Amino acid sequence: MSQYRTFTAQDAVEYAKQFGGLDDPSSLVEAQEVGDGNLNLVFKIFDTAGVSRIIVKQALPYVRCVGESWPLTLDRARLEAQTLVEHYQHSPLHTVKIHHFDPALAVMVMEDLSSHNIWRGELINNRYYPQAARQLGEYLAHTLFHTSDFYLHPHDKKAQVAKFINPEMCEITEDLFFNDPYQIHERNNYPAELENDVAALREDAQLKIAVASLKHRFFSHAEALLHGDIHSGSIFVADGSLKAIDAEFGYFGPIGFDVGTAIGNLLLNFCGLPGHLGIRDAAAAREQRLTDIQELWTTFAERFQALVNEKARDTALSTPGYASAFLKKVWHDAIGFCGTELIRRSVGLSHVADIDTIQDDAMRHECLRHAITLGRALIVLAERIDNAEELVARVRQYS
Amino acid sequence: MSQYRTFTAQDAVEYAKQFGGLDDPSSLVEAQEVGDGNLNLVFKIFDTAGVSRIIVKQALPYVRCVGESWPLTLDRARLEAQTLVEHYQHSPLHTVKIHHFDPALAVMVMEDLSSHNIWRGELINNRYYPQAARQLGEYLAHTLFHTSDFYLHPHDKKAQVAKFINPEMCEITEDLFFNDPYQIHERNNYPAELENDVAALREDAQLKIAVASLKHRFFSHAEALLHGDIHSGSIFVADGSLKAIDAEFGYFGPIGFDVGTAIGNLLLNFCGLPGHLGIRDAAAAREQRLTDIQELWTTFAERFQALVNEKARDTALSTPGYASAFLKKVWHDAIGFCGTELIRRSVGLSHVADIDTIQDDAMRHECLRHAITLGRALIVLAERIDNAEELVARVRQYS
Repeated sequence: MSQYRTFTAQDAVEYAKQFGGLDDPSSLVEAQEVGDGNLNLVFKIFDTAGVSRIIVKQALPYVRCVGESWPLTLDRARLEAQTLVEHYQHSPLHTVKIHHFDPALAVMVMEDLSSHNIWRGELINNRYYPQAARQLGEYLAHTLFHTSDFYLHPHDKKAQVAKFINPEMCEITEDLFFNDPYQIHERNNYPAELENDVAALREDAQLKIAVASLKHRFFSHAEALLHGDIHSGSIFVADGSLKAIDAEFGYFGPIGFDVGTAIGNLLLNFCGLPGHLGIRDAAAAREQRLTDIQELWTTFAERFQALVNEKARDTALSTPGYASAFLKKVWHDAIGFCGTELIRRSVGLSHVADIDTIQDDAMRHECLRHAITLGRALIVLAERIDNAEELVARVRQYS
Repeated sequence: MSQYRTFTAQDAVEYAKQFGGLDDPSSLVEAQEVGDGNLNLVFKIFDTAGVSRIIVKQALPYVRCVGESWPLTLDRARLEAQTLVEHYQHSPLHTVKIHHFDPALAVMVMEDLSSHNIWRGELINNRYYPQAARQLGEYLAHTLFHTSDFYLHPHDKKAQVAKFINPEMCEITEDLFFNDPYQIHERNNYPAELENDVAALREDAQLKIAVASLKHRFFSHAEALLHGDIHSGSIFVADGSLKAIDAEFGYFGPIGFDVGTAIGNLLLNFCGLPGHLGIRDAAAAREQRLTDIQELWTTFAERFQALVNEKARDTALSTPGYASAFLKKVWHDAIGFCGTELIRRSVGLSHVADIDTIQDDAMRHECLRHAITLGRALIVLAERIDNAEELVARVRQYS
C-alpha cells in the first residue's frame, strides 16, 4: 500500500494511465483539476485529441468551509468507492462506474461524465429531462432493495453494516440536518431578515420532537445501504441518462432518508423557481416538479414492490402484503426527512444554488421563507400525508 | 492465545485458580459440571469446605437438539462475555460479574450464584420474590439506556454496533421466533391435538404481515445492546436480589425485544399456572403475574425517562417530550415481540417448563392453546394496546 500524498496533475495522469482500464492509456497526456477544492481533488484526464477520457478523484484530509478548517477522514474515499461499486452492481445504468480504488492514497479512477450535466444546474436553468425522475426512482429502488433485509442473507447484511459504518460523515448529517437549524449555532447561515422565522423553529416543541424522532431513525434504522447525499447536485443527467455520483455519505440507514433527500431537492427547486423564471414559466416548471416528485415515488415504490415479488429471499419479509405496509412507513419517513432537508438547506451551513443564486434579496428571502414553512409542515404532518397526491396537495397549501 | 480444547473438571479447577480473582485460590479443589450439556459446559468450582465459590463456563462448538446436531460458533462466548461486561458496567446489581474471559478457549470465569435460584423454577413453584419484577425493569432500563443513542457518543455507538454483530445467534432467533411457527418445519414441536390451531397461524395473513414487520425491526433497528434472550430461565433470583446471566444472544437490536421477551415469559407462566396450582392459588398467582408485568413496565419506563432527563447526551434526543414518544413505540414493539415469544414457545423448537411440565395432557394442551391465542392477539393488536392497563385488559379478554 502506498502512503498518502496529494496528487499533482501529472500524478493524476500517470495514475489514470496505470489504472484507468483504457485500451490506449498512452494517449492520456494532460489533467485539469475541476473540483471545488473544499473536500476533494477532481482531475479530468485528457487525451492527445483534447477529449476528457476519465476522472481521477482524491480525497483531501480536511474540509475548508465558511472560513474554518476541520480535518476529515480519508476513509471516506473508501466508503464512497465501496458504496458506488455496490450500487453499480445493482443499478449499472444509473451509478457512475469506478475503475480502480486505492484506500491509502484515498484515490479512485472513474468514468468520465463530460457528456452529462449536473441536474441541479439544469433544473435551475429550466432544462427538462423527461426521464430523470423515473430513472432516479429506478436507481433508488434497485440500490436500496438489493442491500435490504428483503434480499441480502442475514449474515451478509450484518457484515455489510459493519463494513459501511461511517462515523465521521454520518456525524456531519447528524449535526447539519437534525441539530444546527433548531438551535443557535455558528455554522448556521441565513439572512438577518429571517431571524424571526428561524427563532420560531427553535421554540417549536412539536417540530423538535418530530426532528428528534427522525434523527433517532437516522441513527438506528439500518434498512439498506444509502447513497446518503442523493441531492440534485450529486446526480448527472443527459438525454435519456441519469448517473449518481459522490457517495461518501454511504452507510446503512433508513430508506426514507435517500428518498426524502431526493424529493426534498426537487421541492427546493420548486421553492426557488420564481426567482429564476417569469411568472408563467415558473408556474409551469413548478407543476413539472410536482409531477416529477409523483413520478419519482411511483417508480420507486412500484419497482421496489416488483423486486420484492421477483427476488425477495427472506421468508417472512416475502409475506404478501408486507412490502406495501413497509413502503407506507418508508413514505412517511421520506416526508419527514424531506422536511429536514428543506430546513437545513435554508437555515444551516450548506445551501442550494436553486435559491442562493437568486439575485433579488426580497425574492430570495421569500423563497427561503417558503422552504422553511413547507419543511416545517412536512415534518410535523409526515404521518398524516399518506401518498404522493396528498403531498402535492400539502405543497400547494403551503405555497 | 491458547488453542481451543474442551475442558475437563480438572482443567476447570486449574483455570479458576488462575483467573478467578480469589484471595485463596489454592483452596479450590473440585469441579462439578452442572450445565445441560447441549450448548455449554458449566462447572461449579468447590473449595476444601465443599462450598461452591466460582463458575467456569465454556462454549461447546455445536448444539445438540431434538436428536440433531448443528455446529455453533465459539464466538458466542466472546459476545456473551462482552455483553455481560458491558451490562455489568451499567447495572452491576443485576448482572452476573465476569472475572475473566478467553476468546480462544471460549471460556469465562464468573461469579457463583449458588445463593440464587433460576426465576422460572421459582415462578412455577409459586415462590414469590416481591422485588423481582421491579429489579428486572431496573436492569432493562439501565442496560438499554446506557447503550442507546440517547447516551452513547455516535462514534462509540457505531463501533459498538460493529463489535456486537452476532450473525449466528441472531439467525437462531430470526428462524425460531419469526419463521418456524408460521410455516411447516421439522423443528416445530407441538402435540397433534393442536394441529388445527397451528395450521390457523399459517393461514393468518394479517398475523403473518405483523410478524414480518417484527422480524424486520429485529433485523434493522439497532437501538441498544440487548441481552437478546432475557427470559425467566436466564434470570437468577434470591431474597432482594436479581441477576441476569446467559447473554450469548447479545446484539444491537430493538429495545422492545428485550422488554417483550421479559413480559412474554411472565405471560407464559400466567398461561401455565392452572396446570400447577389449585383453582384459587392459580387465580391469585395469575393476578400477581399481571401486577408483575405492570410493575416491570412502569419501573422500566420511569427509570428510562429519568435516565434521559439526567444523563442523555444527544442534543436532539434530549428534546423534552421525545423520550416519552419513543417509549410509546418501545411499548408497541414490546407487545408484538411478547406475542411472538408466546407462540414460538408453544409451537416452535424450544418450550418453557411453565407449560411443558404440566402432567395432565388435556390441561397442558389447553395452556398451550391459551398461549397461542393470546400471542396471536397481542401481535395483531399491538399498535392498539397503549399502556400496561390495556395489556392486562386484553390478557383477561383472551383468558
